[in-house]
Amino acid sequence: MHPVRALKFARAQGTRFVSELKEFLRFPSVSSQPERAGDVSKCANWLARHLQAIGLERVRIIPTRGNPIVYASWLRAPGRPTLIIYGHYDVIPGEPASAWHTPPFTPTVKNRNVHARGAADDKGQLFSHVKALESWLRTERSLPVNVKCIFEGEEEIGSPHLTSFIARNQRALRADAAVISDTRMLAPDRPALSYAQRGGLRAELKITGPRHELHSGNFGGAVLNPVQALCEMIASLHDTHGHVAIPGFYDDVRRWGEKERAFMARTGPTDHEILQDAQVERGWGESGFSLYERTTIRPALTLNGMAGGHYSHGSKSIIAASAIAKLGFRLVPDQNPKKIAQLFRDHIARITPAAVHSSVRTFAPIEPALVDRNHPALKAAAFAYKKGFGSRPVFIRSGGSIPVVNTFQQILGCPAVLMGFGLPDDQIHGPNEKFHLPNFYKAIATSIWYLAAAAKLRSAQSPQRKMEWRTQ
Amino acid sequence: MHPVRALKFARAQGTRFVSELKEFLRFPSVSSQPERAGDVSKCANWLARHLQAIGLERVRIIPTRGNPIVYASWLRAPGRPTLIIYGHYDVIPGEPASAWHTPPFTPTVKNRNVHARGAADDKGQLFSHVKALESWLRTERSLPVNVKCIFEGEEEIGSPHLTSFIARNQRALRADAAVISDTRMLAPDRPALSYAQRGGLRAELKITGPRHELHSGNFGGAVLNPVQALCEMIASLHDTHGHVAIPGFYDDVRRWGEKERAFMARTGPTDHEILQDAQVERGWGESGFSLYERTTIRPALTLNGMAGGHYSHGSKSIIAASAIAKLGFRLVPDQNPKKIAQLFRDHIARITPAAVHSSVRTFAPIEPALVDRNHPALKAAAFAYKKGFGSRPVFIRSGGSIPVVNTFQQILGCPAVLMGFGLPDDQIHGPNEKFHLPNFYKAIATSIWYLAAAAKLRSAQSPQRKMEWRTQ
Repeated sequence: MHPVRALKFARAQGTRFVSELKEFLRFPSVSSQPERAGDVSKCANWLARHLQAIGLERVRIIPTRGNPIVYASWLRAPGRPTLIIYGHYDVIPGEPASAWHTPPFTPTVKNRNVHARGAADDKGQLFSHVKALESWLRTERSLPVNVKCIFEGEEEIGSPHLTSFIARNQRALRADAAVISDTRMLAPDRPALSYAQRGGLRAELKITGPRHELHSGNFGGAVLNPVQALCEMIASLHDTHGHVAIPGFYDDVRRWGEKERAFMARTGPTDHEILQDAQVERGWGESGFSLYERTTIRPALTLNGMAGGHYSHGSKSIIAASAIAKLGFRLVPDQNPKKIAQLFRDHIARITPAAVHSSVRTFAPIEPALVDRNHPALKAAAFAYKKGFGSRPVFIRSGGSIPVVNTFQQILGCPAVLMGFGLPDDQIHGPNEKFHLPNFYKAIATSIWYLAAAAKLRSAQSPQRKMEWRTQ
Repeated sequence: MHPVRALKFARAQGTRFVSELKEFLRFPSVSSQPERAGDVSKCANWLARHLQAIGLERVRIIPTRGNPIVYASWLRAPGRPTLIIYGHYDVIPGEPASAWHTPPFTPTVKNRNVHARGAADDKGQLFSHVKALESWLRTERSLPVNVKCIFEGEEEIGSPHLTSFIARNQRALRADAAVISDTRMLAPDRPALSYAQRGGLRAELKITGPRHELHSGNFGGAVLNPVQALCEMIASLHDTHGHVAIPGFYDDVRRWGEKERAFMARTGPTDHEILQDAQVERGWGESGFSLYERTTIRPALTLNGMAGGHYSHGSKSIIAASAIAKLGFRLVPDQNPKKIAQLFRDHIARITPAAVHSSVRTFAPIEPALVDRNHPALKAAAFAYKKGFGSRPVFIRSGGSIPVVNTFQQILGCPAVLMGFGLPDDQIHGPNEKFHLPNFYKAIATSIWYLAAAAKLRSAQSPQRKMEWRTQ
């Protein structure tokens, strides 16, 4: 099947597609805030109805112990390959609202960008595939390949229920490749296929001292301040060379040879480009590695936030009773999140001053992931990019973590095709997140082309099996 | 004049006095939050009306560039001494509301304590004197001495307008002693007269890094995190021995001889008592000094609070754009707040990493203060305590800072009589602040006795001058 009619349809419907994307972005489907569970659920319902409307089949909202998975398929191409299309409809919080030029859940188009929380991460990218599927189905009444859509609602909290869902439904979900669009390109004219993802682990560290706030006049100088203790502990987690100072932290970090590092230097962003994307003047971190290497083949520990005592307006002369820090590890092959969690706990126990107490919670472990750059499914993706964006993609490593990449590779045995459509300045996880509308249109075209190209993959699947979802 | 009838009146009116104190405590007169200015003003009006009602004269709400000063006097005892009675009707914020068992501005009596923000600091203590004045005026239609009440609304923000007000009205405010009840006793049966106050200085330190929040996957390991930078800077402000590590910080700290330190050891609280008051298990700070010394004759730097990044519930994988810390210095003779401010600024400039920017704001400078323990005005106070509480007070140093102490001593040339009625466990500046009602009653009796005893002081004043307040 040639995509000419599907492409033409997509071009003609661009305005409607954008207005539908805005509807999708309007849901504050924040997975990390329990009080948003209702909005998450409404968003799942909207998405499921939408998938039904465009002609996908077997549409299901599959409950988990957390947020539901929205599933839909089209399996009327027996003998042809089967693609999983993965995306996530959950987002991180829109806070702080004051930093946004327009409200995070009031999608606003400005300068050919749509601004909203989740615009690029990941609703806009997910929706590009949905619109590609619609374009095929509306024009050809069929797809070039079999498709299984898995859209989850817990990616931003580490996909706690997805792996077990996939493991339990391994046979039903068999596929030849899994397309994931939750990464980014290097520039509007430089598409990229990600072949590596860092793993992750989150931690909360709480320090408690006095039973209640104390007057800093009466006790300042005689009682250890939990906020100060936390600062000192946090400060000691890095040495002056930007290394993480947790004993054993680097033990399992894979050392890459000159060949791979040379490939990275040739294909990846320069230090200058990374600083420009971050809009900062100078870099930081481990010497001996480029900034691209520091954010991909080297692990990192980031203090996502901390607070203690009185920090809002006005002043209070106090010694606080407690302080909290939220931390995130980014891990690389062959680090193991569980082992890192234990190293962190042990280290915190060692460095906690006797005059305060510490407690540690670790969660959301994610394994680092690597994809074979030479797999035919990735070559097909490179072809589709050339057609959709006008240039072949470079193969890059990502610093972020997508929990499901490893799940697809290890449990389903199919390669993850990380076709990123985001841009470096999309400010994902920041205020004023955006998705560049020309990228949206090109992403749809690329997805249309990919569905056609994937038809030539060798299929190992028999997709027509009856599916009974196992959710517990 | 013998206080027998005034004392009897006060005993009979105890219940009414408590219910009036509760009215006074109901105003959220928070001086550090500009949006509370209306409540501060209402509280000043209420207090002024109350002073008028009990028979004080020349009652005025005197505007300043900040919150008003409530003034009242009774000057019908020519030839007799004149007392200033100072207190403050402003309070610190009632936050965090969740830590309070009853709302901070809904005064609640439980177990013979009245709980509310400001119960002990300072509305309850201030009101003890007001009720003593009322008891005299209602029973004798006169006072044993001349009295000038100065009740300010900005003590908790460092009394920024009080010194200039007193300096401009130096002649009108002349007095033989200034009574200040804003300190505490050692225990319900151990009254105390404070003869030393630490000085103070507040500082806000802001660190800015990236222009906006960054995704910690994309940039973690390559961009310096402002929250982490702030932690490292804060951590470096103390050495491992609990010393403040700002060069020059201790240069002007007065070394006290063995005689004074022996007096302090004899009269002051033990380490054990201080830890018990703070409800903490172990002390912290400069070795070579008792905890009492560390909180009185040694300076301190306290991190009152800090915050940056995402610290509320849920998680956000970010590198923050900025972080803020609020700090408070406690200073001792012969440190100078202005000099300390400069040392701090210089030091922060030196230790700020090149990859972030820092800005420092210092404010609310307060000079350390000492009072002559042998002044007759203090001996009269000791006598009054013996009568009101049944035991003679000990002379102690306070770790806190009352800006006006120095002002009275230096500008008006009169000693500050720091008659504390608070208790160590009153949780001033903490949640569930309280004032112990038996202390309220005894404080009123003590004040009634003090007004009688002060009549015997040698007067250097001619109090009957016409007063025109200079407020600008």
